[in-house]
Amino acid sequence: MSRTVGILGASGYAGAELLRLLARHPDLTVAWASGDSSAGQPVTTRYPSLTAAYPALSFCTLDEGLAKGADVIFMALPHGRSGALAAQATAAAPLVLDLAADFRLHDAALYPTWYGEEHPAPSELGSWPYGLPELHRDELAGATKVAVPGCYPTASLLALAPLVRAGVIETDGIVVDAKSGVSGAGRSLKDNLLYAQADENVSPYNVGGHRHTPEIEQELARLAGTDLAVQFTPHLIPMTRGILATCYGRLAPGVTTDDSRACFEEAYGHEPFVDLLPPGQWPRTRAVATTNRAQVAVVTDRRTGRAVAAASIDNLVKGAAGQAVQCANIALGLPETAGLDLVPPGP
Amino acid sequence: MSRTVGILGASGYAGAELLRLLARHPDLTVAWASGDSSAGQPVTTRYPSLTAAYPALSFCTLDEGLAKGADVIFMALPHGRSGALAAQATAAAPLVLDLAADFRLHDAALYPTWYGEEHPAPSELGSWPYGLPELHRDELAGATKVAVPGCYPTASLLALAPLVRAGVIETDGIVVDAKSGVSGAGRSLKDNLLYAQADENVSPYNVGGHRHTPEIEQELARLAGTDLAVQFTPHLIPMTRGILATCYGRLAPGVTTDDSRACFEEAYGHEPFVDLLPPGQWPRTRAVATTNRAQVAVVTDRRTGRAVAAASIDNLVKGAAGQAVQCANIALGLPETAGLDLVPPGP
Amino acid sequence: MSRTVGILGASGYAGAELLRLLARHPDLTVAWASGDSSAGQPVTTRYPSLTAAYPALSFCTLDEGLAKGADVIFMALPHGRSGALAAQATAAAPLVLDLAADFRLHDAALYPTWYGEEHPAPSELGSWPYGLPELHRDELAGATKVAVPGCYPTASLLALAPLVRAGVIETDGIVVDAKSGVSGAGRSLKDNLLYAQADENVSPYNVGGHRHTPEIEQELARLAGTDLAVQFTPHLIPMTRGILATCYGRLAPGVTTDDSRACFEEAYGHEPFVDLLPPGQWPRTRAVATTNRAQVAVVTDRRTGRAVAAASIDNLVKGAAGQAVQCANIALGLPETAGLDLVPPGP
Amino acid sequence: MSRTVGILGASGYAGAELLRLLARHPDLTVAWASGDSSAGQPVTTRYPSLTAAYPALSFCTLDEGLAKGADVIFMALPHGRSGALAAQATAAAPLVLDLAADFRLHDAALYPTWYGEEHPAPSELGSWPYGLPELHRDELAGATKVAVPGCYPTASLLALAPLVRAGVIETDGIVVDAKSGVSGAGRSLKDNLLYAQADENVSPYNVGGHRHTPEIEQELARLAGTDLAVQFTPHLIPMTRGILATCYGRLAPGVTTDDSRACFEEAYGHEPFVDLLPPGQWPRTRAVATTNRAQVAVVTDRRTGRAVAAASIDNLVKGAAGQAVQCANIALGLPETAGLDLVPPGP
Repeated sequence: MSRTVGILGASGYAGAELLRLLARHPDLTVAWASGDSSAGQPVTTRYPSLTAAYPALSFCTLDEGLAKGADVIFMALPHGRSGALAAQATAAAPLVLDLAADFRLHDAALYPTWYGEEHPAPSELGSWPYGLPELHRDELAGATKVAVPGCYPTASLLALAPLVRAGVIETDGIVVDAKSGVSGAGRSLKDNLLYAQADENVSPYNVGGHRHTPEIEQELARLAGTDLAVQFTPHLIPMTRGILATCYGRLAPGVTTDDSRACFEEAYGHEPFVDLLPPGQWPRTRAVATTNRAQVAVVTDRRTGRAVAAASIDNLVKGAAGQAVQCANIALGLPETAGLDLVPPGP
Repeated sequence: MSRTVGILGASGYAGAELLRLLARHPDLTVAWASGDSSAGQPVTTRYPSLTAAYPALSFCTLDEGLAKGADVIFMALPHGRSGALAAQATAAAPLVLDLAADFRLHDAALYPTWYGEEHPAPSELGSWPYGLPELHRDELAGATKVAVPGCYPTASLLALAPLVRAGVIETDGIVVDAKSGVSGAGRSLKDNLLYAQADENVSPYNVGGHRHTPEIEQELARLAGTDLAVQFTPHLIPMTRGILATCYGRLAPGVTTDDSRACFEEAYGHEPFVDLLPPGQWPRTRAVATTNRAQVAVVTDRRTGRAVAAASIDNLVKGAAGQAVQCANIALGLPETAGLDLVPPGP
Repeated sequence: MSRTVGILGASGYAGAELLRLLARHPDLTVAWASGDSSAGQPVTTRYPSLTAAYPALSFCTLDEGLAKGADVIFMALPHGRSGALAAQATAAAPLVLDLAADFRLHDAALYPTWYGEEHPAPSELGSWPYGLPELHRDELAGATKVAVPGCYPTASLLALAPLVRAGVIETDGIVVDAKSGVSGAGRSLKDNLLYAQADENVSPYNVGGHRHTPEIEQELARLAGTDLAVQFTPHLIPMTRGILATCYGRLAPGVTTDDSRACFEEAYGHEPFVDLLPPGQWPRTRAVATTNRAQVAVVTDRRTGRAVAAASIDNLVKGAAGQAVQCANIALGLPETAGLDLVPPGP
Repeated sequence: MSRTVGILGASGYAGAELLRLLARHPDLTVAWASGDSSAGQPVTTRYPSLTAAYPALSFCTLDEGLAKGADVIFMALPHGRSGALAAQATAAAPLVLDLAADFRLHDAALYPTWYGEEHPAPSELGSWPYGLPELHRDELAGATKVAVPGCYPTASLLALAPLVRAGVIETDGIVVDAKSGVSGAGRSLKDNLLYAQADENVSPYNVGGHRHTPEIEQELARLAGTDLAVQFTPHLIPMTRGILATCYGRLAPGVTTDDSRACFEEAYGHEPFVDLLPPGQWPRTRAVATTNRAQVAVVTDRRTGRAVAAASIDNLVKGAAGQAVQCANIALGLPETAGLDLVPPGP
């Protein structure tokens, strides 16, 4: 018995990935997909790759979608839109998953600081579990609203959470240096996203000010039981998909060489989508491309007194659409891997 | 009831793609995978992308594989190896599919000319149906041996076959200009395949002498009922996967503007893996990447008196491993799309 | 004694390349560079790569530039703008070179057909020599107006001109299959130029209808002494710079194996920027990147009765800015290679 | 009056870059270039890009080169070779510049630890000035032997030296996260350098153990006046050229917001090859590609109590061949920018 799905904002990359993944999902079926600027057009006009999967689906308007409702609604709208639409969406479906940042931060005061405006529905904050199953699986079971994490926080938290939770690294002085493919910036017509500008180029951006920073800090603070600040630096690199987060922390006193690895083994030994690599191997984005998988690795560098941990994900799958489906599976009591048993291409 | 599969030569890209595709196949299960130079190693050492799909599989030797046998054997060996092993392989499995060129050409005299040596088993030639289902589906049903087409011929024939069969273009003067990603050359340590050599570069190679030429000619000649020569020029372009074949032919006298499109509609209207694009749209490799799909398009240019047709495929899937699985499905009487219902990633 | 240069339309890629090349020119000095949408901004804001070369230059408006005048004016404006401005430009400078298509075609009737509108100054057509020095060096010496060829025609003509001029190939049935890096489409915010759309992709476009077609035909017809039609198909491939034109023609009766090579040796034996490769080698775009050089090669395929010729250039240099400087050098009586003695990077 | 140059090891990328740069040098002329595995072959066979610059030069053997001698010898050999050849090289030329690591470290004990073997000529260590002109210009003037820095140390030191020298950051806890194009690994036939493996991929390597670490530490320690350890993590990213080093340090007590910028202005205000970017802009590898230039930027993040600094260079030019030429210019009393006044391509 298949459940119906509606997608708000299906014309962007995350929305298109939802369409791709749900086409193969055994229990979820896309009933409608909104895309205001493309309303009335077949989805295959914008995404020829979806021709076989959705030969007859056209984008509807957001209002048409909300009016129809569904068993599950995914919101893949630009940041700021979901907050204003939350009441309508939750009225239209018993399960709503928001891929934007609008319900990720629990402290309303952070929105003006990092997003430049007051939150439109501050009373909602905190009632949307943060949808990183590896940290919050229990909260997600049976949830009716889910705030799906950002791409950078997903990679960063997968690399750092075991270390912070176990107290292997100090909470002061954590550095996250992240590298992202350009699809993370969406299908938007910006000069720096042009092939001839992005090719053969790497550069940091939003140094010290990227909006994903408070999200990483919030989740690590919850694990540490104390406030903390993270130095987060995103970089754009010349590839389409993938994020690698390389993370650095000062070893806590008395930590032994095996402690860092042990806490990773404990964290990920039974996770269906996270591969802890053997010592000496490091995550590669290619090894997880187009799938919901993550690779993680960690090393203790006694010479410098620091731990170095890294995680690789596909920014559009485990960093967005795939993780949203994973959360929906958990919320609905379906097998967590339903529709997500994809094998990454070798080359 | 699942059938067992053995793969001879699984350490190359085509072999790894077979592993990837078969991991999701409902009726076929990989029992063993040989890779002589990697024998004894886990497949995940060479292909970390297969970690979740094959946590416990190690490469065996070719001899070990042949000794075990299987319901289906795929041979993904270098050209020249399959010919010598055919007797052993067909003794070890009731269905053998060869991804090399060794049984594609029916005329033994072509092997010395194009491959530089006599064929080791000329009596076998002709008894391996040429595994392009869009041309030879009837021959493939119930087959016990299949010669899986080359990547360039697959794309070239999908673009040209309807025109030649319908007599829309003359058999004299056909030009195929093909562009391939570098994975087509395999995972071999060659200077021209290095990133720093292949990036930002395009160049033709083997002009007038590429081994896939006689294969294209053989199949077109069968359709035309007359011998013909094709000017085939392959190019290496800076991408990992995908082939685009752009094909040119002189319009036959009396051909009308609609004839070329009509023969494509007839050829591909019911094909499960081939998308005929609307007029004005042209095939893109990205739109079929990592899947068994093909895009085709054609136009009649009355100003020049020529038809231009193009086809895009993923060279490792529809151009190799995927087509092999498609042929196996047909040979075994399974649904033709079993294990191949993949949706290409959008970006 | 340095001459002053003005650039109309310096904010696009061709204009920026003019700035790059002229920074090292011994006899030409940029006095002003217009860019209406960027007027008032330092050129280094838009092109940080020019920081050392032009620390103090800001874009002016087109009107400011024309009012100042110069010894040489390069027009790097969008097609259609130059035609209307020609009178002003030629009044403002004794030498004007137009990098757009506006004065390339001698037959005014071709503009409505291929460019969609009547030519604004048809009486000017024919008085702007076509600036391909390898064909028209004599006309360019002392010229006051030059129509700089398009990028595709430059590569196509370098490959085809020797064959057509010598009668080695028939004028009927010529095919040009060209592959271009994305910078050829300029620095414009178009969806298909986004990294995530252009990466790992190849596709033909404007099949049978690209505007560079009549330019190729005009020049070949002049060499052949008869009208002809060329089947021209451009492709976008995932690289930033470079064009490769692969060209096909039917061998004329009686042509011997050596004829095709001989006519190339005669054409290019003394050309300062064209390298005829040894038999068996084929042009690579990487080998000419960022410079005004071209590589050419040809083979006679007796099996098919066709000649295959190819040329590689950097689309922004020999295909635009570099060729414009080469033409200016010739027109001014300077050494033809002045400012253009660049060595391509190895990797 | 031109000086003669010999290159030991000219068949690799750094050697080819020396050939490229020296082709345009007003005072240095390449007399010979050795490449043992390519001895006897024209340099243009291996580097078609050098066709116009070196139409008649062939690789000689190392012994032939040393026997001829020259005014200047550049050694671009694999690590470990230069140490053994130093005596012969310095006997053969009054100025020798080594692009390998063999004379960069002053403490002989570091070689077994980081390079796995004893130094063959420990008494030589310390007499080869470390050729980073921005730090050691005085030592380089008139030098007869120069140890040219590694690519990663060049970028890392340009970003960190001003901060460490001025005491703006603590010496404890410095992190360098570096991203390199694949040409940094040389023209060697390794699986991870294949296009189909490196494309669409990013991964750290040699975490905590890369050989460039002690070089960075040595130079920073000299500036700080105290020993220190740096956490250095190199990454391979999918591009051919360029390195970006993103560097992190804890702010020293009492540092004000302006201190970090001020020390950069002081360090680089008069440097001919280093561009300090305006606040808010960050280094891009594309903006320095194929040239000897560097971009640097820094920010003080008071929220985290850290400084973030970054530098971009072309790994083969400022990170190897270009810096070697810059050092030679200084040693010989030539203008420091001779032969190095290249303008980076815009796109």
